[in-house]
Amino acid sequence: MKQYAFGVDIGGTTIKLGLFDKGGGLLKKQEITTRLEQNGQFILSDIAAALTGLMEQRSLTLEDILGVGVGVPGPVLRESVVNRCVNLGWGVVDVADTLRRLSGIERVAVGNDANVAALGELRLGGGRGFDSIVMVTLGTGVGGGVVQQGRIVSGAFGAGGEIGHLLINPAETEPCGCGKYGHLEQYASATGIVRQAKKRLAQSDQASCLRTCEPLTSKAVFDAAKLGDPLALDIVGSVGDSLGAALASISCVMDPEAYVIGGGVSQAGSILLDAVSRRYRHYAFHASEHTQFRLAELGNDAGIYGAAQLVLPPAPHV
Amino acid sequence: MKQYAFGVDIGGTTIKLGLFDKGGGLLKKQEITTRLEQNGQFILSDIAAALTGLMEQRSLTLEDILGVGVGVPGPVLRESVVNRCVNLGWGVVDVADTLRRLSGIERVAVGNDANVAALGELRLGGGRGFDSIVMVTLGTGVGGGVVQQGRIVSGAFGAGGEIGHLLINPAETEPCGCGKYGHLEQYASATGIVRQAKKRLAQSDQASCLRTCEPLTSKAVFDAAKLGDPLALDIVGSVGDSLGAALASISCVMDPEAYVIGGGVSQAGSILLDAVSRRYRHYAFHASEHTQFRLAELGNDAGIYGAAQLVLPPAPHV
Repeated sequence: MKQYAFGVDIGGTTIKLGLFDKGGGLLKKQEITTRLEQNGQFILSDIAAALTGLMEQRSLTLEDILGVGVGVPGPVLRESVVNRCVNLGWGVVDVADTLRRLSGIERVAVGNDANVAALGELRLGGGRGFDSIVMVTLGTGVGGGVVQQGRIVSGAFGAGGEIGHLLINPAETEPCGCGKYGHLEQYASATGIVRQAKKRLAQSDQASCLRTCEPLTSKAVFDAAKLGDPLALDIVGSVGDSLGAALASISCVMDPEAYVIGGGVSQAGSILLDAVSRRYRHYAFHASEHTQFRLAELGNDAGIYGAAQLVLPPAPHV
Repeated sequence: MKQYAFGVDIGGTTIKLGLFDKGGGLLKKQEITTRLEQNGQFILSDIAAALTGLMEQRSLTLEDILGVGVGVPGPVLRESVVNRCVNLGWGVVDVADTLRRLSGIERVAVGNDANVAALGELRLGGGRGFDSIVMVTLGTGVGGGVVQQGRIVSGAFGAGGEIGHLLINPAETEPCGCGKYGHLEQYASATGIVRQAKKRLAQSDQASCLRTCEPLTSKAVFDAAKLGDPLALDIVGSVGDSLGAALASISCVMDPEAYVIGGGVSQAGSILLDAVSRRYRHYAFHASEHTQFRLAELGNDAGIYGAAQLVLPPAPHV
């Protein structure tokens, strides 16, 4: 009887693997190093070996496994094919097909990591109780995941939920990581927040405890704001403004029930959530002014939780 | 045997009704005046009477009717309840329930007019062959409809596809019709195009045939651009830029297969489509650079065609 599922989250430095029960509960977690050599060609066989290892530890056979869900840092077509994963060195790779062959596990479903995390949060985390959410992951970059009526919107070209590349400032002169200009990621990612902070510090002589921060991090900015540092409060206000404006535009497209904010930057907690939701309500079209805001709950494990959910039925309400 | 369906498009001045065969073909069209008096309370009974009239003309009974689809100019919840329709004087109205009671027709489904038109274009018009489109209706305002995997995305608060209210210029000082600032509608609607044209004419002494245009219309702007008038070409370029930027952002959310451009302004044809798609590709995230662009095909009848599709199965491929 098939009682277990795997969730795999492939990152640029480590791969997380989780063994889950049918209800989506995490039984066992493992991390392996992402081998980037030779265009990442060992990644999938390393994963297959790790899955086999986890099965052996628990004396499980292929008969016990419902399937493997995989999150990858790139656009995914038809829950299977990755179309260029710069961080892994991959071009076009049929992840589902390859992993099926290597592991012997029949059901393999693949999704973009941010989309998969959004599914995890919807079913088991900060998005519980909702049917449609947009998850915003504020880390080194800004990722996003759109879940509409319980299903991931991966998009025609795998760009569904790529909200870090929403244009919010047509006048920007510095390029985004993607090469274009004025994207949300340049203002609301950890990197973007530090960039903005440095700019503000350079532009004025205003006293601020951030002037002695070395290295200056987005966490330091939020910590200083919590202590009432006026310049840090300004920066947090401006991050809230960028995000609020971007999310107000997202509501004019798909109008989700809730936004779930996750990623390292979201550890700032309510100060961030308040700043974003206040500016969101300022910008939002009247019908969408009451969209809910939540913090993500699954942390770094959202990826494996969500990946397993790709092959598991929706959990009963908890 | 149920062989027929009705499509109804409620506008602020007229209500269009169509009788359709099961395949979505239009058999008979009728228009009645929208009676706005007493908060539009006669609208639904007028529609019920018109439907009965159309049935009598063809000797149809309730047994012959699959259902009625209705498009309304406001946000719609659960294919049934309208939440404020300013143009009709309506507050919260359960359109499906009321029309069911008044007409005796059991199956009534209601959608926002722009969303419904998008469904019509997807199934029978410019969006044929695609599974997910965003329709952009450029008229007095800018409307939009999102269809994802063949289904309308109406949104949690009925604001799905309200793309006229995407924020594209945070620096705008004049308000949008909705009361907020810098929305797409202020730049790409017929009204917005004229507003932009007047501004440009006032800002320079550049020769232009638009200076003698009375009244100045968006059609005149496109006509002048087609004749090579440099100032009109500039305005068309700027309309293309606003729309291109907005649609590039939409692709970062839903990533549709195609954009279908309709509404009165779209009669400008390829000059508009070229201007929009060129700027779209400039702004778009790399994965979505090849999204298709199409002109709408159903014209003013998109509303009734699409409304009928709310209660009809997808037509066989034509």
